[in-house]
Amino acid sequence: MQITEKKVSVISGGLCAVEGVEANGIHTGFKAQDKDLALIYFPDGATVTGVFTRNKVKAHSVLYDMKMIKAYTDFKAILVNSGNANACNGLNGEEDVQSMTSAVAQKLNIDAHEVLVSSTGVIGEPMNLKPFYAGLESLVGGLNTAGSTSAAEAIMTTDTVPKELSFETEIGGETIHFGAIIKGAGMIHPNMGTMLSYIVTDAGLSQNALNTALKSAADDSFNVMTIDGDTSTNDTVLLASTNKVMLDESYLDEFTAVLTAMCQQLSQMIARDAEGATKFVTVKVVNAATKSDAVSVAKTVATSSLVKTAVYGQDANWGRVIMAIGNSDAETLNPNAITIKFASGEGEVLVCHEGLAVPFDEGRAFNILSNTDVEIFIDLNTGDYSGEVWTCDMSVDYVKINADYRS
Amino acid sequence: MQITEKKVSVISGGLCAVEGVEANGIHTGFKAQDKDLALIYFPDGATVTGVFTRNKVKAHSVLYDMKMIKAYTDFKAILVNSGNANACNGLNGEEDVQSMTSAVAQKLNIDAHEVLVSSTGVIGEPMNLKPFYAGLESLVGGLNTAGSTSAAEAIMTTDTVPKELSFETEIGGETIHFGAIIKGAGMIHPNMGTMLSYIVTDAGLSQNALNTALKSAADDSFNVMTIDGDTSTNDTVLLASTNKVMLDESYLDEFTAVLTAMCQQLSQMIARDAEGATKFVTVKVVNAATKSDAVSVAKTVATSSLVKTAVYGQDANWGRVIMAIGNSDAETLNPNAITIKFASGEGEVLVCHEGLAVPFDEGRAFNILSNTDVEIFIDLNTGDYSGEVWTCDMSVDYVKINADYRS
Repeated sequence: MQITEKKVSVISGGLCAVEGVEANGIHTGFKAQDKDLALIYFPDGATVTGVFTRNKVKAHSVLYDMKMIKAYTDFKAILVNSGNANACNGLNGEEDVQSMTSAVAQKLNIDAHEVLVSSTGVIGEPMNLKPFYAGLESLVGGLNTAGSTSAAEAIMTTDTVPKELSFETEIGGETIHFGAIIKGAGMIHPNMGTMLSYIVTDAGLSQNALNTALKSAADDSFNVMTIDGDTSTNDTVLLASTNKVMLDESYLDEFTAVLTAMCQQLSQMIARDAEGATKFVTVKVVNAATKSDAVSVAKTVATSSLVKTAVYGQDANWGRVIMAIGNSDAETLNPNAITIKFASGEGEVLVCHEGLAVPFDEGRAFNILSNTDVEIFIDLNTGDYSGEVWTCDMSVDYVKINADYRS
Repeated sequence: MQITEKKVSVISGGLCAVEGVEANGIHTGFKAQDKDLALIYFPDGATVTGVFTRNKVKAHSVLYDMKMIKAYTDFKAILVNSGNANACNGLNGEEDVQSMTSAVAQKLNIDAHEVLVSSTGVIGEPMNLKPFYAGLESLVGGLNTAGSTSAAEAIMTTDTVPKELSFETEIGGETIHFGAIIKGAGMIHPNMGTMLSYIVTDAGLSQNALNTALKSAADDSFNVMTIDGDTSTNDTVLLASTNKVMLDESYLDEFTAVLTAMCQQLSQMIARDAEGATKFVTVKVVNAATKSDAVSVAKTVATSSLVKTAVYGQDANWGRVIMAIGNSDAETLNPNAITIKFASGEGEVLVCHEGLAVPFDEGRAFNILSNTDVEIFIDLNTGDYSGEVWTCDMSVDYVKINADYRS
């Protein structure tokens, strides 16, 4: 994974940093009091693509969006509610998706098939659409080109901060903008941490090209981030282009590089705000025999509860790291070639060299791991491939948050 | 998985319930003060087979035992130390295995190749054999036919109780005995919970037959138990027959059934005494399309941190269960056919019927989950196969125990 060398400026505005995007977020009644309904509106339309959860149990909104994006290329609105996942609700769940998209379309005076929808919250709880209908006037009426933050707030669950990001860059001699909101890793009322992200750009590309770029960017960002190894029924990333700046497809690689950098920053925002997390952890694997070996090792280390609790305890417990490496699906592993370091802004400490313990200063190692950003560096010494996965530590608060009764 | 219908009586004596088995356990110096060295001795020899960790990083003792069991069928002693895993110690680790087996062989006046060895404890820490040599006289001198409990104590790490089991049964008209000690799921000093189990029987069978029986029994017991999804570098199960009662191989299925029942009880002892565990959890999957689908679903549910923290919180949070089901590798899954119940000695509660929420009494569900033995029952409604996996809940203490600094 490499951060693009393209010059990118971080700008303000979130979603609305892109021309042709209005947004709003309000409280209706899916949650007790916080904002729970967001609307992203493209008055002149947008070409949209998406990547969705790989969980075999998918929420009704996910199934709907997948179908619509297959059938259509352009859309005008994305509606998102938090507080109810609308998953496992049977025919009622499907009907609720239809009712929600139709109602929004009517208010916006557009076609129902121009509306996409996402949900996050409790699974298997019937949707109560009354407060939704009651709030619709205010939701649509309040759409504006400074509404990104309110939309970011309305998609939060146990996220502790709203998350937005916007970029400006130059591609093919044109100034291109990107804006995004994201939420994830939270649960107070909901049953699991759903990741939802909405990314907009003015770079005009076909739906196919956008899809190629998004899949590639997601593989190098959202798909190499793990909080607890569980994938929700509702995960959704939508990429919308308002087509204000038409881009030749020969610039697709450049576009993908910037999109990837953006998705990487968005992913890291999620891991940093994960449930109970006290540390952001990068697991970096180098010199693997294949790319898939590198990623497999990094993911196995990043999902090991024993590794994550050790990091929480600031314990340079490399025995757990090598144990996790050995449990990975990597096909080429030589235990006697593995080298492990722990690193952070405080420095780095070599703890295992070619499969053997290296005497190290425990006080210094503890100090390195006391940083809030730590890296577990693994050299497999079996080839030329590398991979990186982002995660967080596992704290006492993680268990407390998730053992909390739903209601 | 079915418990054998064979009549089995639980008897006392542990390992030494079997004729031809002596044992002892003492403190030497691998641990600060507790017993840390066990010896199981077969004066007339025993046919031994084993199953070992699938972790690609294997301890020196594991590699040694695998090699010896391939080369020889009969052994006279099994030496086990706790407090140091002798893993990732390079050539020194290999030499220490040789030194330990040679020293024990000399004291017992047997050949070095008649000794097997296991270790459990910290990874990558050089072995200090001085206290071991100093204790050897007392270890061997104290061998006796009532020494099973002291051996069970000497292989403990954070286990809170020593674990022994012995059975008597009749096979082919002969009275057959089984004895075992087991440890696991503990860590104070060590880096991970290693599972070690030693099972003895007087039923005389070839090493091949014993191996067939042990593999089958392990698949239906140790391999369907999960504490935290991590597999140690040292896991070892040895099965030894003192051949006091020769058994025709036509009785192998009967023998396997009793051995399986024994291994199932041993596994459950581990899950009940797991780190920080407050509950023993059975995940039972029925009506799967294939055996592998059933086991995959049960394992994915049993290893989900979100499911395990919900059980700890006594929350009938079936949304997390269906999320985990959807994340399994099962090939045939129909989300609209899945039925989920929670059950315990307090009764059972249906929470999801054919993919849809069922209204239920939350107070009653909480009461059912307040039991220390709970079952998550999953009906996939796609076939005729079933599978069961045992685990425990994930508590605040699990994180506290594992975040504790090694030293």
